[in-house]
Amino acid sequence: MTQQELFENIKKKESFLCVGLDSDITKIPKFLMQNDDPVYEFNRQIIDATHTHAIAYKPNLAFYECNGTKGWESLERTVAYLKKNHPDIFIIADAKRGDIGNTSKLYAKAFFETINFDAVTVAPYMGEDSVTPFLSYAGKWIILLALTSNKGAFDFQFTQGFEKKQLFEQVLEISQQWGTESNMMYVVGATKSEYMQRVREIIPNHFLLVPGVGTQGGSLTEVAKYGMNNHCGLIVNSSRDIIFASSDENFAIAACAKASAINQEMKILLMKYL
Amino acid sequence: MTQQELFENIKKKESFLCVGLDSDITKIPKFLMQNDDPVYEFNRQIIDATHTHAIAYKPNLAFYECNGTKGWESLERTVAYLKKNHPDIFIIADAKRGDIGNTSKLYAKAFFETINFDAVTVAPYMGEDSVTPFLSYAGKWIILLALTSNKGAFDFQFTQGFEKKQLFEQVLEISQQWGTESNMMYVVGATKSEYMQRVREIIPNHFLLVPGVGTQGGSLTEVAKYGMNNHCGLIVNSSRDIIFASSDENFAIAACAKASAINQEMKILLMKYL
Repeated sequence: MTQQELFENIKKKESFLCVGLDSDITKIPKFLMQNDDPVYEFNRQIIDATHTHAIAYKPNLAFYECNGTKGWESLERTVAYLKKNHPDIFIIADAKRGDIGNTSKLYAKAFFETINFDAVTVAPYMGEDSVTPFLSYAGKWIILLALTSNKGAFDFQFTQGFEKKQLFEQVLEISQQWGTESNMMYVVGATKSEYMQRVREIIPNHFLLVPGVGTQGGSLTEVAKYGMNNHCGLIVNSSRDIIFASSDENFAIAACAKASAINQEMKILLMKYL
Repeated sequence: MTQQELFENIKKKESFLCVGLDSDITKIPKFLMQNDDPVYEFNRQIIDATHTHAIAYKPNLAFYECNGTKGWESLERTVAYLKKNHPDIFIIADAKRGDIGNTSKLYAKAFFETINFDAVTVAPYMGEDSVTPFLSYAGKWIILLALTSNKGAFDFQFTQGFEKKQLFEQVLEISQQWGTESNMMYVVGATKSEYMQRVREIIPNHFLLVPGVGTQGGSLTEVAKYGMNNHCGLIVNSSRDIIFASSDENFAIAACAKASAINQEMKILLMKYL
C-alpha cells in the first residue's frame, strides 16, 4: 500500500484508527472457547464489528506465539480474512524484530511473503543491516521503534549522545538514510506527546504509528495537535480499550461502540488540523 | 538450569560450544525435502551428530517463522527432542524479543511455558519493563543484547551518553539492577573482541553468549583470552560453519567433524585460561 492510498482511506473513513488485535486467549469471552480456533473467531467478529471505523489492524505477535503452533495458525487465518474481505485495510505485524542482515532477511520473508502483512515493527538497536532487508519489498513498510509508550523508554531512549542528541533523535535522523517516507514509519508513543513536536521537526512527513492512547494514558487530542501533518501522518492504535470493551456475548457490539466513539473524535480532529 | 549446572556441563564436555540451528529450509540438503518435516529431520540429525561436542543449541526464530505454522511446528518438535534425549543441553530461543511489560509477559510464556526453552535473547531498546517479565521464571534466563556482531552495531551501540559511557556500557550497567548472574546473560559479538575487556570490567561474572565466530569473522582465541572467567562464563555460538559444513548425504558427519574441531580448540583454551 502506498502513502497516498493510506491517506485516501483515512479521508474516506474520516479515521486514523488502528485496532490492536492483542487477542489474549485468557481474556476473550469464555463462550468463544467452544470454537476450533477461538482467537481467530474472536478476531473475525471484532473485525466485522469495527472495520468501518478503522484503517488498520495490528496483531501483536506475543499474543499468538504464546499459543504455539495453534497461535501462529490463528494469526495466518486472521491476516487472510482481512486481505480477502477488507483489502483496503493496512495490516501491521507488531513483532519488534531485528537481527543481523542474513537473519532479518528471513524475518522479512516471514511477514511479507509467508504471511501477507503490509508492515512490520522493527527494533533499531542492531542498526542499519538489521533494518534494510525489510525495505526491499515494494509496497511494504517497516515501522521503526523510536520513542515507545512504556516507562522503560526512559532507560535508554533519552540517552544523550553526539551533539547532545538523545538516542531516539539519533534513531530518527540516522535511519532516514536507510529508507524513505514511502517505506518507513516510526513508533512514537502517545504517552510521550510532549516530544511529538521534536519528532516532527526531524521527520515532518513520515507516518507515525502511535500506541498508548487509552489504557496506557495517552491523549488523542495532544497527539493530533502536535503530530498531524498535511496527509494526516498518524495511525493511532487502541487495543484493550476496544477489543475487551465487554466480555459477554455483546463483546463485538461493545467493541464497535468504542471504535465508533474514537472515530468521531478523529473526525473532529481531522477537520481541525488537516 | 543453574549457572553451576551449566559450568559442570562445560567441564564435563570440555566445551563451551553452542550450535546455532539457523536451519534455512532453502539450504538444507535437498534429499531431506522428502520428509514430512524436513527442518526438524535436519535438526534431529545435526543434534545426534554434534551433541557430545556442544553444551547448548540455539534455534534462531527467523528461520522457523519464515515457514509459517509449519515452521513453528518444526521448532516445537526440535526443542521437545532435545529435552527428551539430551536434558543436560541448554536451549536458547534466539528471538530478540522485547515489548511493553504486559506484552513481554506473553513472550515469556511463549518461550518458557508453551515451548520449554531455557533462555531467550531480548533487545534492550524498550528498557526495564520490557525485560523483567522474563526474569520471574525460576531456572530460566534472559540473554540481553549488549554488543552485537554485525556492522550495524556501530550505528547506535557506541553512542556516547552520560559520563561518556557508550550505549552498550549503559545497557550492561543499568540492566544489572534488573536481574542477577543467575538469570541474565549478555550477547557480546566475537567480532567485537577488542571490547571484551571493557565488558568484563563491568560484568566480570555473567555468562556471555558470543556469536560471530566463523563465517562472521570473529576469533575464538581472542574471545577466550579476554572473555573467560573462573566459571568459563562463555557460550560461543557457531551456526552456518557447522550445520552447513556439507550439503550432501554426509552432512551430519561433516557437522560432527566441524563441531569436534571447535571442541578441541575449546578444550585447549579451557586448560589455558580456566
